[in-house]
Amino acid sequence: MRHAAVLFSGGIDSTTALYWARGRFDRVSALSFDYGQRHRVELKLARRLTSALRIPHHFIDVDLAQIGGSALTDPGIDLPPENVGTPDSGPPATYVPFRNGILLSLAAAWGEVHGARDLVCGFDVIDSPEYPDTREVFVRAMQEAVNQGTGAAMGGIPFALHAPFVKMNKADILRLGLELGADYSFSISCYAGAETPCGACSACLIRGRAWRELGENDHLVRRLKEE
Amino acid sequence: MRHAAVLFSGGIDSTTALYWARGRFDRVSALSFDYGQRHRVELKLARRLTSALRIPHHFIDVDLAQIGGSALTDPGIDLPPENVGTPDSGPPATYVPFRNGILLSLAAAWGEVHGARDLVCGFDVIDSPEYPDTREVFVRAMQEAVNQGTGAAMGGIPFALHAPFVKMNKADILRLGLELGADYSFSISCYAGAETPCGACSACLIRGRAWRELGENDHLVRRLKEE
Repeated sequence: MRHAAVLFSGGIDSTTALYWARGRFDRVSALSFDYGQRHRVELKLARRLTSALRIPHHFIDVDLAQIGGSALTDPGIDLPPENVGTPDSGPPATYVPFRNGILLSLAAAWGEVHGARDLVCGFDVIDSPEYPDTREVFVRAMQEAVNQGTGAAMGGIPFALHAPFVKMNKADILRLGLELGADYSFSISCYAGAETPCGACSACLIRGRAWRELGENDHLVRRLKEE
Repeated sequence: MRHAAVLFSGGIDSTTALYWARGRFDRVSALSFDYGQRHRVELKLARRLTSALRIPHHFIDVDLAQIGGSALTDPGIDLPPENVGTPDSGPPATYVPFRNGILLSLAAAWGEVHGARDLVCGFDVIDSPEYPDTREVFVRAMQEAVNQGTGAAMGGIPFALHAPFVKMNKADILRLGLELGADYSFSISCYAGAETPCGACSACLIRGRAWRELGENDHLVRRLKEE
């Protein structure tokens, strides 16, 4: 019996990851984090999907505003219109320092207690190469750290960290999700924090490009127009 | 200018680590975590020392009782009189799942924001070999994860994780601390949660043995008797 915990923010990537995991593991749980993000509305919408799919959904609070240093957790730092970081110039203002290391550590702890040894992340590196903590090499390093720092190192079942989309762009992730029957009508990516996406932040721009590449209207926007 | 952040719980090991770091780095900050531990009193006492030493002291809240699975964060799980885990039988009830992975991740995030690239832990493996997340191999794996998941991977200054006492027993750590002039009179190790140590939990027993090996009375107990 393999139990997977999916790190689920409710965006395109992690929504697809949730459907991907459902087809692969005997049991799937969704883990979401209230880390003080300005777009906390994603949690409310995420719950709509797991509730419809009857997937157990656990919420963990970890206030990263205590640490700061990011436009996503500090209202005093403006959201840039596009991510300006590059692999050479360092991470952009929307990078939350070591966020995915912190969230994966909490997910591993949760998984150790609840018997979930497969941790699934929807990391999309192709469209957002400026974030260090979504890359394959980081995921492999975290897997090693988790396996050395838990009961896995003492004869327990080892953890496997999965980031199945690290070599795919967002249009391909979306295409895969649609093939898997994913419902994106409650999936939000926007950093600004409202239930209606701003259309201008880097997350909205990347998402918009992916839908256009598929020649479809964003299912979230479609739902909002119909309501 | 090297700025070190010391993970400081206020016990013997991390108190010694604080003095050790003061002699090695240009600037030292103490980081303490309220993680829902039943012995949260350690934080109040820890502040007494940093205040006397005029070391900047930062407190980060991360509620690991949300995750549970440990006698240190769940009042429903009894404290064992001695740690019964062994490297073969898995971690004991006082193990907090991946706690040190979570705390080091938060420390790395804090360090990235505040320019502290040296992270110092007082991990004592010799006296407590039953905890997976204090071992040298875990520290090395975490260092790699931190350097792959932060701006260090994009041309930033790399992190160095230091665990200088992993090959020393507690009596030797204590001896070193006393040579460095460490004040242990506000250092508490007890898991039970009172300001007067219980003398019976595994942390008290290990600490008691170390002081006896040195032929000294525990400075904490001495202070309490004098008050």
